[in-house]
Amino acid sequence: MSKPLRFELQKSLNTDTTKARAAKIYLKKHPYALELTQKGQSFPNSTPTEFVIETPTFMPVGTQGTVKGLTPNDLVAMNAQIILGNTYHLYLRPGHQRVERLGDLQKFMNWGGPILTDSGGFQVFSLSAMNKINDEGVTFQSHIDGSKHHFNAELSMQIQRALGSNIVMAFDQCPPFPATEKFIRDSMKRTVEWAKRGLKVELKPHQARFGIFQGSLNVELRKESIAQLSELPFDGFALGGFAIGEPMEMMHQVVRHVAPLMPENKPRYLMGVGRPEDLIESVRAGIDIFDCVMPSRNARNGQLFTSVGRINIKNARYADDEGPLDPSCECETCKNYSRAYLRHLFVAGEYLSGRLNTIHNLHFYINLMKQMRKAILEDRFDAWAKDFYSQFNAS
Amino acid sequence: MSKPLRFELQKSLNTDTTKARAAKIYLKKHPYALELTQKGQSFPNSTPTEFVIETPTFMPVGTQGTVKGLTPNDLVAMNAQIILGNTYHLYLRPGHQRVERLGDLQKFMNWGGPILTDSGGFQVFSLSAMNKINDEGVTFQSHIDGSKHHFNAELSMQIQRALGSNIVMAFDQCPPFPATEKFIRDSMKRTVEWAKRGLKVELKPHQARFGIFQGSLNVELRKESIAQLSELPFDGFALGGFAIGEPMEMMHQVVRHVAPLMPENKPRYLMGVGRPEDLIESVRAGIDIFDCVMPSRNARNGQLFTSVGRINIKNARYADDEGPLDPSCECETCKNYSRAYLRHLFVAGEYLSGRLNTIHNLHFYINLMKQMRKAILEDRFDAWAKDFYSQFNAS
Repeated sequence: MSKPLRFELQKSLNTDTTKARAAKIYLKKHPYALELTQKGQSFPNSTPTEFVIETPTFMPVGTQGTVKGLTPNDLVAMNAQIILGNTYHLYLRPGHQRVERLGDLQKFMNWGGPILTDSGGFQVFSLSAMNKINDEGVTFQSHIDGSKHHFNAELSMQIQRALGSNIVMAFDQCPPFPATEKFIRDSMKRTVEWAKRGLKVELKPHQARFGIFQGSLNVELRKESIAQLSELPFDGFALGGFAIGEPMEMMHQVVRHVAPLMPENKPRYLMGVGRPEDLIESVRAGIDIFDCVMPSRNARNGQLFTSVGRINIKNARYADDEGPLDPSCECETCKNYSRAYLRHLFVAGEYLSGRLNTIHNLHFYINLMKQMRKAILEDRFDAWAKDFYSQFNAS
Repeated sequence: MSKPLRFELQKSLNTDTTKARAAKIYLKKHPYALELTQKGQSFPNSTPTEFVIETPTFMPVGTQGTVKGLTPNDLVAMNAQIILGNTYHLYLRPGHQRVERLGDLQKFMNWGGPILTDSGGFQVFSLSAMNKINDEGVTFQSHIDGSKHHFNAELSMQIQRALGSNIVMAFDQCPPFPATEKFIRDSMKRTVEWAKRGLKVELKPHQARFGIFQGSLNVELRKESIAQLSELPFDGFALGGFAIGEPMEMMHQVVRHVAPLMPENKPRYLMGVGRPEDLIESVRAGIDIFDCVMPSRNARNGQLFTSVGRINIKNARYADDEGPLDPSCECETCKNYSRAYLRHLFVAGEYLSGRLNTIHNLHFYINLMKQMRKAILEDRFDAWAKDFYSQFNAS
């Protein structure tokens, strides 16, 4: 039986300043995707049996089985290659068993492409009222109705198996920032044990599995985490526990140190990061995959990213501005609507505001990754980054 | 100079039970539409210089320069022929002068088709805190910030001229239900005077103008209103002041009496109506044009219309239902999503819920009008209505 994930490193820069790399990740199609392929509705940039993901890449976040406000067609139009779903949320609502009865998460939301599901670990620790944590697992109360639930390494795998995601994340404990060294060490070790236990749970044939490195901002503990997990049979690895309140410059420093230590021939994923500059600096450190709610959440708040810097669309200066949000952007929003109209929609509290803004911000992020990939393949990443920053920070 | 509106009656039934009619309304294209036509982006079912509206027709409501949650492309996909904009709302926000500076309302919202704007009369009386009304006009406070404003027959025309809508409605006073006969008579007479005054304000060459008949449920006063306004040079006429709280059966009775008395060779528009059965009974009475927030507002509340009756998508019975909302519907929502998914989106409070539900409900309404038109042209309206009711009321 073929592997659920193949990794093909295309280019790896190795200078003092950049370890950026470009790769292709081949993911086995799940049953629903094969069905679509047979119907001639194959996902863009896929073979009859595999999805092809070009990295560096950014995954739009579809927490509850939808990228807020958008349809799968919107995501295809912006060249999204893979999206993220949340195990914690989908377990609570609509329930993973229901999703499995109806096919899989991809079919449920009518998304023809691949999905990565997180393990629920981060949400259990950040969203729910936690009642108890020990080596066995976590007991917590739902943020929706206060009902009591228990997660552990095995159940997280079983839920993700039921959801049918293409990449399954190991269950992890994410320490808050700041935390004591002992807490960081304990949660890192516990994450290693949970990873091992999770590996014993069989997944569906199309499902790849990623391990998660913890260790907060402690480089030595991060190294230990990497040393202990890297030899295990994961298809890829992630850095968890970043972008949870620490100064971003400290995160950059640690990522710069540890990303190059992650297995070279497997995908490297930095979870929950970040701002455009965080993506650039982390790609520079050798990261391949990202996800973050920032582009979509900021969009709904009227905070927009453009090639010439950030825009708060609420600002009165845009009230009569008939130009597009970003003159160099090709997204549906920039091609069809003026800043004046987008400001009006935001100020009037219209639903369409969130939709059009989200399309733009996600397109911006995905396009940013594409630009980085091109620059890496052409061996001019540093020059590209310098150019980008000079425009982006000009205003 | 050609007229802004031409009316072509195609078929007019005249039995004891039905006066239903099918027509084509030709509307002169506004400058932005001509520009789009020159660019090869002509609106569906239009000639190089005119929009062609096939009646009976339903106009989706785009209160603040957007049909809530939808893009113009969504509206084209559901075969919307014309939409409605609200003078009161657009005057307050973003301001009609701003819209005019930026082109016109159609350009502002990137809608390639025609727009009818109401006069602001209804909203002034229903939404704002009214301070004073007399024969000259109305002083009121904005529902947004309490600021003071004054509307009259002339200003309503000037605002609609600035908005550049294709059909401009006369400024009217809509009496509440119930009201005394004196109040109904006075507001009807005032509406006649305001109509006459408004006619003196010149519009743009592409703008057609409709008069509004008032008179509440008083058939004699409605007849008087029709007698006094029908000879004035309006391009079409509307029945205003219905569906404001009166028993719907009473509305049906009055409409049945007065619709056939409206000028035969001009469009007949019933404002703000209604439920599917109200549309059917009013088409039966001889009405051509409708608008109503019901399909879009109900959609956001999870109340959906299907060929086999009403659905409350929140209902637990749909949690595992993998079928489409309406098996005989061809809309984007029904072609791509299950009831189970739509229920999940609604229960989870997701933005996509309102969008997908609105697409379905508006498609349902527009398709309902199409079916009625076909039945009229084929001289089988009564039989069609009987069939429709037997299915729609079955569940």
